[in-house]
Amino acid sequence: MKIFLAQQNYHIGNFEANAIKIIKAIEQAKKEEADLVLFSELCICGYPPRDFLEFEDFINECYKTIDIIKEHADTIGVLIGSPARNSLKAGKDLFNAAYLLYEKEIKAEIHKTLLPTYDVFDENRYFEPAFEWKCIEFKGKKLAVTICEDIWNLGDNPLYRVTPMEILIKEQPDVMLNLSASPYNYAADVVRRSIMKAHTLKYGLPMLYCNTVGSQTEVVFDGGSLIYDINGNLVKEMKYFQEDYAIFDLEILSEQKKQTSQITNSADLAEAVTINKDTGINKDDVFLSSEKESTWEGKYYYSASEVGRDMDTLKYLTDDKNIQEIHDALVLGIRDYFTKMGFTMATLGASGGIDSAVVQALAVEALGKENVHVLLMPSEYSSSHSVSDAEKLCLNLGNRYNIIPIKDVYQGFLSTLKPIFKDLPFSVAEENIQSRVRGNLLMAVANKFGYILLNTSNKSELATGYGTLYGDMAGGLSVLGDLYKMQVYALARYINIKQEIIPRNILEKAPSAELRPNQKDSDSLPDYEILDRLLFQYIELRQGPKEIIAQGFDPTLVKRVLRLVNMNEYKRNQFCPIIRVSSKAFGVGRRLPIVAKYLS
Amino acid sequence: MKIFLAQQNYHIGNFEANAIKIIKAIEQAKKEEADLVLFSELCICGYPPRDFLEFEDFINECYKTIDIIKEHADTIGVLIGSPARNSLKAGKDLFNAAYLLYEKEIKAEIHKTLLPTYDVFDENRYFEPAFEWKCIEFKGKKLAVTICEDIWNLGDNPLYRVTPMEILIKEQPDVMLNLSASPYNYAADVVRRSIMKAHTLKYGLPMLYCNTVGSQTEVVFDGGSLIYDINGNLVKEMKYFQEDYAIFDLEILSEQKKQTSQITNSADLAEAVTINKDTGINKDDVFLSSEKESTWEGKYYYSASEVGRDMDTLKYLTDDKNIQEIHDALVLGIRDYFTKMGFTMATLGASGGIDSAVVQALAVEALGKENVHVLLMPSEYSSSHSVSDAEKLCLNLGNRYNIIPIKDVYQGFLSTLKPIFKDLPFSVAEENIQSRVRGNLLMAVANKFGYILLNTSNKSELATGYGTLYGDMAGGLSVLGDLYKMQVYALARYINIKQEIIPRNILEKAPSAELRPNQKDSDSLPDYEILDRLLFQYIELRQGPKEIIAQGFDPTLVKRVLRLVNMNEYKRNQFCPIIRVSSKAFGVGRRLPIVAKYLS
Repeated sequence: MKIFLAQQNYHIGNFEANAIKIIKAIEQAKKEEADLVLFSELCICGYPPRDFLEFEDFINECYKTIDIIKEHADTIGVLIGSPARNSLKAGKDLFNAAYLLYEKEIKAEIHKTLLPTYDVFDENRYFEPAFEWKCIEFKGKKLAVTICEDIWNLGDNPLYRVTPMEILIKEQPDVMLNLSASPYNYAADVVRRSIMKAHTLKYGLPMLYCNTVGSQTEVVFDGGSLIYDINGNLVKEMKYFQEDYAIFDLEILSEQKKQTSQITNSADLAEAVTINKDTGINKDDVFLSSEKESTWEGKYYYSASEVGRDMDTLKYLTDDKNIQEIHDALVLGIRDYFTKMGFTMATLGASGGIDSAVVQALAVEALGKENVHVLLMPSEYSSSHSVSDAEKLCLNLGNRYNIIPIKDVYQGFLSTLKPIFKDLPFSVAEENIQSRVRGNLLMAVANKFGYILLNTSNKSELATGYGTLYGDMAGGLSVLGDLYKMQVYALARYINIKQEIIPRNILEKAPSAELRPNQKDSDSLPDYEILDRLLFQYIELRQGPKEIIAQGFDPTLVKRVLRLVNMNEYKRNQFCPIIRVSSKAFGVGRRLPIVAKYLS
Repeated sequence: MKIFLAQQNYHIGNFEANAIKIIKAIEQAKKEEADLVLFSELCICGYPPRDFLEFEDFINECYKTIDIIKEHADTIGVLIGSPARNSLKAGKDLFNAAYLLYEKEIKAEIHKTLLPTYDVFDENRYFEPAFEWKCIEFKGKKLAVTICEDIWNLGDNPLYRVTPMEILIKEQPDVMLNLSASPYNYAADVVRRSIMKAHTLKYGLPMLYCNTVGSQTEVVFDGGSLIYDINGNLVKEMKYFQEDYAIFDLEILSEQKKQTSQITNSADLAEAVTINKDTGINKDDVFLSSEKESTWEGKYYYSASEVGRDMDTLKYLTDDKNIQEIHDALVLGIRDYFTKMGFTMATLGASGGIDSAVVQALAVEALGKENVHVLLMPSEYSSSHSVSDAEKLCLNLGNRYNIIPIKDVYQGFLSTLKPIFKDLPFSVAEENIQSRVRGNLLMAVANKFGYILLNTSNKSELATGYGTLYGDMAGGLSVLGDLYKMQVYALARYINIKQEIIPRNILEKAPSAELRPNQKDSDSLPDYEILDRLLFQYIELRQGPKEIIAQGFDPTLVKRVLRLVNMNEYKRNQFCPIIRVSSKAFGVGRRLPIVAKYLS
């Protein structure tokens, strides 16, 4: 049996476009003489559809789209993901389902069991978990079909009480197929590979895992679909951050390596698995029984936040492999946001600082140099190099730019406010006015010409509230909002790896908001090397003050920083979507009350 | 047995303040010789704590606070709500729990079963549902203790498969006690009373339902705790939108009315219930068996969105009782936001229009007239009455105000942008500049003096995207963001009921943004009477285009409005918290993807 994997990028709610894309893959698979095409989770409507799932009309559209696709599933089997109505009227209205289409009919429907409801996931909001499990028979083979999170439990994930594969394996299936919509973060690939491999070894079956790819507002799906053979070997890792297609012969994936096993038929194999189960499978035994891959970490994780926990934080955050992936994720994130919103051009404010420089370079990669229009908006507090560095960057990247000083507008604000402000001293109010004048200028240009404003705030700033609402916090999409400052530097170095795109001075000068004379970030914030490590402990690892202090951080600093993070929730609450690259980004995956008093 | 109910307003994460408040109620209950004090759901930490529940340190603080309170539960029983660790390490880490404290010990711990995960609720994100149920024995009585949603299922709520009271009733309890954190919306009281009454009639037991009160960022808890006797009579409806305390004698609540029942002891009662159960209880029978209260709707609902579904939409939206409650909810919402954030003063922009007038009047009620500082910011497009009407309102309310024309700053922006805009015609870009100049002025004043800017956008505008990001959409809290325009008018009339506070001209003139010459809302939007009815169908009732058109709306208009709603998700995504008064507010309770193409 030949199985074709379609790793595709869908547009949420765009049923017509999704159907065309799916049908194209089916026709391609037919040409390559595949027996079965495997798609990803909820591919019919795109993932995550969120509260659209509460609209009856949206679900009707899903069913209509399946009917259209069904006509193409004639001689070929098609495994697609879609929401399905719960006809029992017990529990939530929907299941997160996979359908086998074949001979122009729906031949089977299976339901997802483990519904992630944490971080960016809300599946319990919409779906009822499966309460029946069975393999799908197709062309003489038994397919153990699961959906994404269903295989995120090897029987010991404390989040769940059910292990779908433990039930399915009793039917002695021939292969494990997983339809997935598993988002990227810079620890996810390690987690994924460890779990897939563990499955093939535990159940003694090949695994074909088909992930979706593409960015959906803030969540980036990275593709990287995985195919493991029966011996636990990684046969193929499909492309990351791109659509990709591949075909596999199940017979070849199922060939036993003589040296690791004498078992030759599926009945014996099932028995072996049962024996393993009875004797109590041990994860160390499982991994000791096969060679380690080069990327293999030697243990498996259920949660990305476990990865890197015991490493040196800064080294982990700025690790080469991570930064390279982050780069690709951000470029895809920008490109998909624009394409799916129907926009082509971006604007941004270039300050001569590192953050805007990196955003500008990424925007050029994502959209093309002709589609990035930059504003340089110096004030009386801007240093001379701010404009010259930003200009140099525009020249290096080939971007159109305008220099529009904010002095006149800023003075206009001060005059207008004089009857109210009187002779009160310069304060954060005046700093914010400058930042908001820039925000207004950028939005004016964006509105006039139909651009989207790219935001340039980083995660360290967002965490501590070091930014102005409606000023430098304005924008339609945050490119760096999930990167700590030290990661922004690492990314700049990566961008410059072949040639100096970002002028060296931008990388070397001390960070400053330039909203008052000689201002430096370090006047208000601790050194980013310390701050970022501290923030990672609190945000990604959710450590409390005692645990963080126990790691050697200054207690006064810890309390101050945690207080800043918590009291600035109100600012982040009004921030634009942030392209998510970490295991805990600000935004939909981190939900905190604004009106609270905890560590603040 | 005497049971004391403490309907209190907690501050999320403010363990010290919450403990002091709880202990004060316990001491009061002791003075009144109560045997037991009943508090509300998660009162230890405040509800909803959201992702703070993922912090180990936060849970530790909950346990520490219980330890402090325990010392006061000496001769009196105390039923409090708190998160509890799931020691089994199977399923999520926490339960949503109630503890019985007595003789300075934890005597019992029960867990919530039905975890609301819809609209503003995310309980499956944090909690494992209960899988064991038992009554609590206390001073010779059996208490059937449930937590909030646990009683939102009479066996036929399609959301759930379990009915905790069906299990507890088998132990023949003496009373039903419910710890609740049930938020207000203008249909909620009907739903609540219908469910409580149905319980007392179905199970033949008195019900004491203790709700929390107070506003938590966007969600308003209205109190209104309910006490029903064994005969299904509403004995007491505690205060709405205020803290309140009351004491009840269980023996009196348990007295059977001779004429409706011959059953005199609890064993017989339990048998009667069993008989009822075996013969299949029918909700019509239940309600026919007792007299209807004046407020009794004759049927029960599980969801507020079911209420009003068959009524004339406009009549329902502007119903006197609803508007009066909405008024109280908004005043509490403003007051609690300021108090809990540690602020006392507000600013807002008064345009001379109805929305800002209503916000200003509500702010004065919530914060006092001396704590509202108003800006009037006329432009060249402002009509003469805009300033005079707004001034008159300030005089009526006794607010400090400044008139600061935006002309100079606006012209400054146009000059600064001239090299980019050149001679392109006036467009939405220029309209937005004006709106953002006002936003910047308001934020400058707020920043300078430590005010919070109150936003004045209404739900009809937010739905259709008729507003400027960082301009009139700026602010820390949205007062009217969950009220359709017709509801704003109804609220203005209600505010004026005793005397003319809001000048009549503000109520009578045609709505306008005044961002270009002779602009009217009706240039861009349909009449609000039609628009609001249409929006209610789509937003509250989640009807699809076909169903809405079938109700007689113009098909072209329906498509246009639905498209506007969906394509403006990106604007609402950056909007401030909205005080929630409906069953479906924009914000945390309505989660839609930005990058989507559905009906748009």
